[in-house]
Amino acid sequence: MNKVTTEEDIRNILNQMGEKALTAALALALLSPEAKNKCLLRMADALENAAQEIKTANQQDLAAGRKKGLSPALLDRLELTDSRIKAMADGLRAVAELDDPVGRKLSSTVRPNGLRIDKVSVPLGVIGIIFESRPNVTADAAGLCLKAGNAVILRGGSEAINSNLALAHCLNRAGVIAGLPDGAVQLVPVTDRRAVNLLVKMDQYIDLIIPRGGEGLIRAVVEQATIPVIKHYKGVCHLYVDADADLEMALRVTENGKCQRPGVCNALETLLINEKIADKFIPPFVECMRRNQVELRGDEAFCQRVPDAKFATEEDFYTEYIDLIFSVKIVPDAAAAVKHINHYGSHHSDAIITENPETAAFFLRGVDSATVYHNASTRFTDGYEFGMGAEIGISTDKLHARGPMGLAELTSYKYLIYGNGQIRT
Amino acid sequence: MNKVTTEEDIRNILNQMGEKALTAALALALLSPEAKNKCLLRMADALENAAQEIKTANQQDLAAGRKKGLSPALLDRLELTDSRIKAMADGLRAVAELDDPVGRKLSSTVRPNGLRIDKVSVPLGVIGIIFESRPNVTADAAGLCLKAGNAVILRGGSEAINSNLALAHCLNRAGVIAGLPDGAVQLVPVTDRRAVNLLVKMDQYIDLIIPRGGEGLIRAVVEQATIPVIKHYKGVCHLYVDADADLEMALRVTENGKCQRPGVCNALETLLINEKIADKFIPPFVECMRRNQVELRGDEAFCQRVPDAKFATEEDFYTEYIDLIFSVKIVPDAAAAVKHINHYGSHHSDAIITENPETAAFFLRGVDSATVYHNASTRFTDGYEFGMGAEIGISTDKLHARGPMGLAELTSYKYLIYGNGQIRT
Repeated sequence: MNKVTTEEDIRNILNQMGEKALTAALALALLSPEAKNKCLLRMADALENAAQEIKTANQQDLAAGRKKGLSPALLDRLELTDSRIKAMADGLRAVAELDDPVGRKLSSTVRPNGLRIDKVSVPLGVIGIIFESRPNVTADAAGLCLKAGNAVILRGGSEAINSNLALAHCLNRAGVIAGLPDGAVQLVPVTDRRAVNLLVKMDQYIDLIIPRGGEGLIRAVVEQATIPVIKHYKGVCHLYVDADADLEMALRVTENGKCQRPGVCNALETLLINEKIADKFIPPFVECMRRNQVELRGDEAFCQRVPDAKFATEEDFYTEYIDLIFSVKIVPDAAAAVKHINHYGSHHSDAIITENPETAAFFLRGVDSATVYHNASTRFTDGYEFGMGAEIGISTDKLHARGPMGLAELTSYKYLIYGNGQIRT
Repeated sequence: MNKVTTEEDIRNILNQMGEKALTAALALALLSPEAKNKCLLRMADALENAAQEIKTANQQDLAAGRKKGLSPALLDRLELTDSRIKAMADGLRAVAELDDPVGRKLSSTVRPNGLRIDKVSVPLGVIGIIFESRPNVTADAAGLCLKAGNAVILRGGSEAINSNLALAHCLNRAGVIAGLPDGAVQLVPVTDRRAVNLLVKMDQYIDLIIPRGGEGLIRAVVEQATIPVIKHYKGVCHLYVDADADLEMALRVTENGKCQRPGVCNALETLLINEKIADKFIPPFVECMRRNQVELRGDEAFCQRVPDAKFATEEDFYTEYIDLIFSVKIVPDAAAAVKHINHYGSHHSDAIITENPETAAFFLRGVDSATVYHNASTRFTDGYEFGMGAEIGISTDKLHARGPMGLAELTSYKYLIYGNGQIRT
């Protein structure tokens, strides 16, 4: 399959996949919750039963990766062990346990002419997932898409092609045995980059593209796509320590937001300190950051108080470090904090620490972000922490889904209208 | 302004508009319902007070249109009379009367760790509307966007540029007087086609593009856009007359769907007749269509029964005639009808006429369309008929909004999270 060279060849392969996915999606939309859950459990078992087969395919990817000189960290992300395969299987079992997101009555109204209009959740149809390296995405994303009644076309990174093909094949086969139509789970077998550019224009088959990866990948998909894309750009998250903050709480939440897991999108990148409490808050804050080996980059007012801090450039305040680096700015009030966040932030997750309810309300209303916190860590922006039971990503878009995306965000709706012969006059 | 020639010039104009819109949107999001309504009423008065000014600008467009040889129908659509200006003003007053779509609590949950997570509706931000000919869209779209707290950038057709500029200028000025930030309503002053291509890539400023016009316009926008687009493609709407139909009702609903207003997207294009009642239903149906001067194009089985009907090609079944032409097919059962609709239809509005509740349930579940009717005319697919009070369009997308789009569909949401110092462990 990797020998494919002409664009026409790739297009033909993708069209065949699209047709199969569309047929599968129409059938999936009609399945009962029980039938979908049976499929998910069957798939979980199939992954464990095929562990040897999957690991053999994975060994090919690992060998190619070593030859290509992939870093140990990347090789580790690529590797599939028995425990990781079990984790994927358990993930599918957990998804089976969740409430079914399809068929919920979202609203029901009766019009003066007697028509009853029910708005009911339905699957989106066919979802395309474009992702990098980690092969576990194949099972995780397929499980969530299926639970919401969608067919899925996956496109993983070339480093993991054999692992991904083995996983997708195993899942699709188990689905067919459990009664799903062939094509509910498919993986693009072509590693050629042109496949992505063609895939994201196949709006006759695919209803939604979700790219999972770095900003470069997402941007490239958006540039090419004619299919709607839900984007998960960077998380430049802020904490604002207000004049009326409980400073012990502020320090605890700051440390959690910056240091507990700095490499994730809901970690803090910028701290905004109200100037009225700056002199009191900064010494313990600096001490805490030193203890955590965090590099501080401050504005002028901060650097005056902390001479060994680096000077933050304008660019710093736009930057998602996803590292132990922290930009810091001293602001006169909550309004200045809100203005900074709306300008430099990425509309992801931002927090205020204050005991003043009016200031909190002003901040929560003014900050234009998917999640805005009062007296809590931005690290909670996560589908599981939000009680969604699962997460396919965190949207930085405002359309369709904003913030953590769970199963409900993988559905659309339709209107069912019941009459007794009404006509329009 | 129409002398602009370089792409750089156009880009600069659009960037300035984008900056203004973004600033306006942040301020608009904080306005109370009362403040927004006051602005809408002020705008309505301003339109009526500026009627002379608006008609003068409109005369320029009409003169240019006549010179260009526009058809009488197009010239009529372009013309602004006192009564049409009053209708626009009354439209704004009606929007002011509607419930405010912003600030609704969509859900509220308390997590085991004590965090309270409220999901609250908020404005989308900046909306771009790209439309053709009819200048009343300027006022109608601006009113709906503002009511939902959004700034709007409008891009109308070149035939109406002077009328649209006069309207947008009048609305924006009235808004400023009433306390809105400058830039809440803006119209792109450049008629050059490149302006559209640049506008739809300005994702740093604009959150959503809504093209209003023919399929060609929409397709061109989708090809270029990096901003999310909500599409309103064609309406290839079906009525299926089941074996268990009340045939008098079927005839009445068929006539209404096809003949009452054939030029709109929710009018019928294809009739599917169950073969068991075909011989009984066809004679009165044909008689009714003849009376309405509807051209019939049937499949083989239909043409055998109605020898003077034209033969429908495969292409006919994909076609939105928006005219007094009707394609007709005889099908063995509801399953065949569903299959035909999902394959040839446009996922807009489709109906079944049957007295059998099981067949109805099967059809409503199986048809993958925005609105599916049991015993009622597809002509009801409309924001007003759905009780939304207003309509910005009918989405044939499945993301964010499907079917009629009212004010609620012009909002997004954010999560407000209330804690007492929670950190993630």
